[in-house]
Amino acid sequence: MNIFGLEPVVKFGTDEQKRRWLEPLVQGRERACFGVTEPNTGLDTLKLQSTARRDGGHYILSGQKIWISTAQNAHKILILVRTTPLDQVSKPSQGLSLFYTDLDPSIVEITEIPKMGRAAVDTNSLFFDDWRVPATDMVGQENEGFKMILHGMNAERILIAAEALGLGYAAIRRAATYAGERHVFGRAIGQNQAIQHPLADSWMKLEAARLMIYHAARLYDDGYSSGEYANTAKYLGAEAAFQACERAIMVHGGMGYAKEYHVERYLREVLIPRIAPVSREMICNYIGERVLGLPKSY
Amino acid sequence: MNIFGLEPVVKFGTDEQKRRWLEPLVQGRERACFGVTEPNTGLDTLKLQSTARRDGGHYILSGQKIWISTAQNAHKILILVRTTPLDQVSKPSQGLSLFYTDLDPSIVEITEIPKMGRAAVDTNSLFFDDWRVPATDMVGQENEGFKMILHGMNAERILIAAEALGLGYAAIRRAATYAGERHVFGRAIGQNQAIQHPLADSWMKLEAARLMIYHAARLYDDGYSSGEYANTAKYLGAEAAFQACERAIMVHGGMGYAKEYHVERYLREVLIPRIAPVSREMICNYIGERVLGLPKSY
Amino acid sequence: MNIFGLEPVVKFGTDEQKRRWLEPLVQGRERACFGVTEPNTGLDTLKLQSTARRDGGHYILSGQKIWISTAQNAHKILILVRTTPLDQVSKPSQGLSLFYTDLDPSIVEITEIPKMGRAAVDTNSLFFDDWRVPATDMVGQENEGFKMILHGMNAERILIAAEALGLGYAAIRRAATYAGERHVFGRAIGQNQAIQHPLADSWMKLEAARLMIYHAARLYDDGYSSGEYANTAKYLGAEAAFQACERAIMVHGGMGYAKEYHVERYLREVLIPRIAPVSREMICNYIGERVLGLPKSY
Amino acid sequence: MNIFGLEPVVKFGTDEQKRRWLEPLVQGRERACFGVTEPNTGLDTLKLQSTARRDGGHYILSGQKIWISTAQNAHKILILVRTTPLDQVSKPSQGLSLFYTDLDPSIVEITEIPKMGRAAVDTNSLFFDDWRVPATDMVGQENEGFKMILHGMNAERILIAAEALGLGYAAIRRAATYAGERHVFGRAIGQNQAIQHPLADSWMKLEAARLMIYHAARLYDDGYSSGEYANTAKYLGAEAAFQACERAIMVHGGMGYAKEYHVERYLREVLIPRIAPVSREMICNYIGERVLGLPKSY
Repeated sequence: MNIFGLEPVVKFGTDEQKRRWLEPLVQGRERACFGVTEPNTGLDTLKLQSTARRDGGHYILSGQKIWISTAQNAHKILILVRTTPLDQVSKPSQGLSLFYTDLDPSIVEITEIPKMGRAAVDTNSLFFDDWRVPATDMVGQENEGFKMILHGMNAERILIAAEALGLGYAAIRRAATYAGERHVFGRAIGQNQAIQHPLADSWMKLEAARLMIYHAARLYDDGYSSGEYANTAKYLGAEAAFQACERAIMVHGGMGYAKEYHVERYLREVLIPRIAPVSREMICNYIGERVLGLPKSY
Repeated sequence: MNIFGLEPVVKFGTDEQKRRWLEPLVQGRERACFGVTEPNTGLDTLKLQSTARRDGGHYILSGQKIWISTAQNAHKILILVRTTPLDQVSKPSQGLSLFYTDLDPSIVEITEIPKMGRAAVDTNSLFFDDWRVPATDMVGQENEGFKMILHGMNAERILIAAEALGLGYAAIRRAATYAGERHVFGRAIGQNQAIQHPLADSWMKLEAARLMIYHAARLYDDGYSSGEYANTAKYLGAEAAFQACERAIMVHGGMGYAKEYHVERYLREVLIPRIAPVSREMICNYIGERVLGLPKSY
Repeated sequence: MNIFGLEPVVKFGTDEQKRRWLEPLVQGRERACFGVTEPNTGLDTLKLQSTARRDGGHYILSGQKIWISTAQNAHKILILVRTTPLDQVSKPSQGLSLFYTDLDPSIVEITEIPKMGRAAVDTNSLFFDDWRVPATDMVGQENEGFKMILHGMNAERILIAAEALGLGYAAIRRAATYAGERHVFGRAIGQNQAIQHPLADSWMKLEAARLMIYHAARLYDDGYSSGEYANTAKYLGAEAAFQACERAIMVHGGMGYAKEYHVERYLREVLIPRIAPVSREMICNYIGERVLGLPKSY
Repeated sequence: MNIFGLEPVVKFGTDEQKRRWLEPLVQGRERACFGVTEPNTGLDTLKLQSTARRDGGHYILSGQKIWISTAQNAHKILILVRTTPLDQVSKPSQGLSLFYTDLDPSIVEITEIPKMGRAAVDTNSLFFDDWRVPATDMVGQENEGFKMILHGMNAERILIAAEALGLGYAAIRRAATYAGERHVFGRAIGQNQAIQHPLADSWMKLEAARLMIYHAARLYDDGYSSGEYANTAKYLGAEAAFQACERAIMVHGGMGYAKEYHVERYLREVLIPRIAPVSREMICNYIGERVLGLPKSY
């Protein structure tokens, strides 16, 4: 789990909770994962269907989660569930609560999802029913979980944009090196504009995305809470990086398909920041509505 | 090996060779692979460095090949090597000879190449030195191998274009089905133009590539030997299919990254017809020179 | 007015009408224009607001039309107006009627629209009130006008696609000629792949669009009434041609901006078949719904 | 002439020249134009063919220039010509000299070039033979003209990038306004993602180009003399702006073709910063060689 995942605990946890949870985490004795997404809701977080109902000193959790990274090796999970039914709240953003608690595979069914790449990290679906969680594991106020999660969203988008960017630069670096060394028809293939120019174009787009990421990060650090630049950074970073990775494969020709040259892996990796944590389409909706003043399209 | 690979045997083999080679192949008792590409030549086939020198009733082969599909399971190989050094021929297309002979892994070192996709078929590099091949295994005239190989090239490009096309249609079909069934924000995601229109665009491009493939195939069947339409078919088919596969992943969101939904595999598969048997860049060179009358750029 | 515009008269006119209208037209003694589009309806033809009400042997027309080509020089107009209010018909496609009648600038206010290109043809907005049109100038049945107009739509799309295609080929031809003749840095600029390959790519896309246009035309001639291929032809033809024209300018560098080299004019011309008679977006909607089975998005 | 054009006079002129030339210019009593480009050299400035030979207290100029803006109304011209033949210099960048002198239409033949847009400014070709220019009108050292011209190049690229950017923002602003106001099929067309998302995408790309322009300008102000960021700013600014203008037309549909809505004019205008003062291809060459370390391709 990346460092931003635990921000709600840092910001909204009690002193006792921070001591109990953050110390073993920072010491590396415990590992945590992060559970928000559900299979039936996609990016519509307010429709989460997993529930928790109070039962004495515990909450009873039932439901499922998907795309939970590192759950195979995590001791803890930060999980968002609905504590008040949707039809009993005045706004759909209310009624969700956040817990940080033990993740016990004998209680929670954890199933790994075979996937395209990101072999370094297991990805899982979770299924749970009658899972008793101590009330003392709740983070912050009951029914206020969504706000706490929202808090880290812009930071996460900027972070993921930077991750994509790194993949893009790595791809261009490998492609430029290969294009300079590989000789066909009596000269380096990088002397061909059809090879050279797409790499130059990608470098320029990556540089622009880099400036946008710094810009968004600076605004975030300054306390600016709107999301247009964090979203733009994630959009431009992921798109530029995907294109760079795809071009790196094509520059390598057949070698681009061999694992030995790594660029095929970059392409598989870069699809994650392209897809998550928010889609291109939702970013365009955000900019279309908030910046351009156009009506909601969905 | 696809059926076009053996065309040189069918067209230029003796009756005795056809009986000896084609019968067990057609009966499924023998499997064959195809060896042209070398690591140091790429698409510059005329610079092949593997050699064969005559030694009584045999030829002695030395050199290496790369991207040899199914070599792990093949009994036979159709292999192109240089029998007359490049500095002793009047044109670089001369001096290459074709053999169809036993592929014995105790003589030829066969190393599988770990690769991005196409798990159904092993891909290999071959290394051989002092490999004695009977002179009776030569196909057609000595030093005339390149012409025989050329013969099947347009057919192969049309075939590969059709293979790409199939992947593209499969991707669009899965994406459209998913977009119709998956509901987020209270409606099928396929109701969103950002999801629907790229799929419509891909369908139109695939249909156009389909017509081009038929057109090229018809010309080939009619004995037309120029390559502009076979090349165009391969170019448009592979590009449209790649885009379709990439869009299919994006339409699936996170699910597109899970192996369960198959579209990630389509993307990995479709890169092969995009890269091979001829690159986009070489096709653009061909059209630029032969159709548009522009000077050679490399 | 192109030849397809009068198809409703040919198909649905009485013998007397055909004699009265088609003869002077074919003889070149009369010119006609075509009036469907209105400023407030765009592509939503069923919402036309111009009306005609019966008054003895006449109809009284009131309303406005826009994008009426050649109205400055036309003697006649084929015009579609609503004869039964929208709230009195069971389907919105009913209640529209078609007239072929005199266009008298002393009765109908005809205002030319200054526009980007297409200088060969005037384009106009029409305003009319209390315009008395003889009932004998009605084409076909009252209230059945929309069906008659629909009839020629696929043919028109195929025709416009071909018009775009011609511009695209003209642009590529000029660009390739210029790229072969213009020398900078000691060689023809067409030797640079950054110049040559985009032209090769455009040629291939134009060829594919050409096959699609032929395919759609063949289906139309065979009586096939669905629109997926006519729409696809128009979409691919216009997009490929626009890209070809844009690239032709860039290949010409500064000369591409001078009127002398014509390519700037091609770009201005090609925007018309890109915009009309149906937008890219409506074509994608058509394919998305009719071919891919996705829900209506608007 | 934009302010950067006269930088060589400011930097390299004598005090007497500055008083004689800059005062009337700043007071608006004189107008100047800028003459570097020639029809036969394109972007290969070092091959300029216009010459000046010394004759007592004068130089005799012969040759031609092209794309000279405002020459119809200019009193003065800053002109670069060759004073030492190419075969007598050790480097091709030597032997060019710069003059700031009277532009007299009775001596220099000035012909306006009809062009696609930029109606606010006349553009011309110049032809001159035996044009006597006082030696006191030479700027800086003889044969050192190229270095002086080079000086302003990065600044000019940043400036032109900003000009493109302004057009792009204007186009997006008009398009978003129109998309919000125009209703078809019962709703604002901007509610359709096919309209809204391309505008959102363009806004994000323009914002990234804006950051790149500021970055390049900051580096220039700090005395950084390399061109990778000035070139990148011009590349990204012009491409993003062109796409924005093109999309603005498409969003307007037919109205986009009418002069009344201005967006057709933006498209015509934005082609200039896309083409000049340096092409996309030369920028990609620059980045490919200087940043990515690839071989020269031309």
